[in-house]
Amino acid sequence: MKRIKIVIAYDGTGYCGWQLQPGKKTVEAALNKALSQLFGEEIMVIGASRTDSGVHARGNVAVFDTSSLMAADKICPAVNQRLPDDIRVQKSMEVAADFHPRRVKNRKTYEYRILNTKVAMPTERLYSDYQYCDLDITAMQKAAVYLIGEHDFKSFCSVKTHAIDTVRTIYQLEVTKMEDIITISITGNGFLYNMVRIIVGTLIKVGRGAYLPEKMPDILNGHKRGLAGPTAHANGLTLIHIEYEVES
Amino acid sequence: MKRIKIVIAYDGTGYCGWQLQPGKKTVEAALNKALSQLFGEEIMVIGASRTDSGVHARGNVAVFDTSSLMAADKICPAVNQRLPDDIRVQKSMEVAADFHPRRVKNRKTYEYRILNTKVAMPTERLYSDYQYCDLDITAMQKAAVYLIGEHDFKSFCSVKTHAIDTVRTIYQLEVTKMEDIITISITGNGFLYNMVRIIVGTLIKVGRGAYLPEKMPDILNGHKRGLAGPTAHANGLTLIHIEYEVES
Repeated sequence: MKRIKIVIAYDGTGYCGWQLQPGKKTVEAALNKALSQLFGEEIMVIGASRTDSGVHARGNVAVFDTSSLMAADKICPAVNQRLPDDIRVQKSMEVAADFHPRRVKNRKTYEYRILNTKVAMPTERLYSDYQYCDLDITAMQKAAVYLIGEHDFKSFCSVKTHAIDTVRTIYQLEVTKMEDIITISITGNGFLYNMVRIIVGTLIKVGRGAYLPEKMPDILNGHKRGLAGPTAHANGLTLIHIEYEVES
Repeated sequence: MKRIKIVIAYDGTGYCGWQLQPGKKTVEAALNKALSQLFGEEIMVIGASRTDSGVHARGNVAVFDTSSLMAADKICPAVNQRLPDDIRVQKSMEVAADFHPRRVKNRKTYEYRILNTKVAMPTERLYSDYQYCDLDITAMQKAAVYLIGEHDFKSFCSVKTHAIDTVRTIYQLEVTKMEDIITISITGNGFLYNMVRIIVGTLIKVGRGAYLPEKMPDILNGHKRGLAGPTAHANGLTLIHIEYEVES
């Protein structure tokens, strides 16, 4: 038996998220099916990030164990032949048998795209949120700074979470604009349930002038979900990559 | 009666092109339906560019006549309420009653996107062509130069065309690369049936090394469709904008 790590990209539009759910189309189910067909044995992947329904990925990570003798780097092109065109394995490699993609320390980077114009652009609709009101980027940038570092992000976490420890570290949180697209890029050592989308929803409120940037410490210190903004739509969010301290 | 010009953006993925076809989902049919509902009278648009099945637009143009008293600029937001989310009117304005979007001199700009990587990226698949072989951009740029100016583009035109005069002028033809995306941007005073896609298909052959850039004059001067490369896939193509010498 050997453990294989794969890096996976997908268009989340047509999926009920990553995680297996009876009777639902999920990315995990599609991967299990394609890998099981390829190897002729039952394969069950373990994913690094269980992205929500509609969220996209360029670099999610999963591992699985196989008794196959196929060279690890050949698995990528072979499984892609069996996957639908909205999922593509980008890379495959062998890792240590005890490498677990959620238990090994890592940094995840997400990007959230917002189209900020007076009329929506159809070719952007699947991969960005649409905001009609002019957003004040400078205010959003000021607000973002308060979130960088180690904080208790309880206010930025869905009430549906099971997490007990809600302290996380954000290494990088940038708000940039190019033409009509605002991109919010965020890197952290882990994210709570809906945390990125709630941060974005809160930054959008700041951008609209509904919250002042200086309100961010109060939201953080209040430890109540109700203090932060709404959960931004899933379609604007893409998991860009996951870096591991130790790969194998 | 007044004549209204609209600028239209659409995601061509779900449409059998622009032009009305019995029993088929087309952009023209969707616009006629939404505008007729809005005004309570039968509206028939006249399009500037009858884009093929699967081709996208950020700035196609159409006109229609209406007896409605609605302010011209208010038509854009009003009709968008009645359109599916893969079509959005970007602008609406009154023009002269004899303004015809195909008969008035204009310059059209198209963009063709190619993802050039070893593995396809699902979130790019709807709006770009995918090419596995490394394309030589420098060779493509050299080949492109031969096409700029006034030429008989018979070799770059589908044999299904009805055009008698196959002379057209290309003002600008640029091949650029950013990360893994090659963009071919082309501006001309009119394009023959499939002309942009055949130019792209030919440039891809040059990029692969199958044709030398210096072959381009022979292809042009041969006046035979068979000399040029294949017709590139529709999904990589977007009509960016149409500029008119005289608007009204």
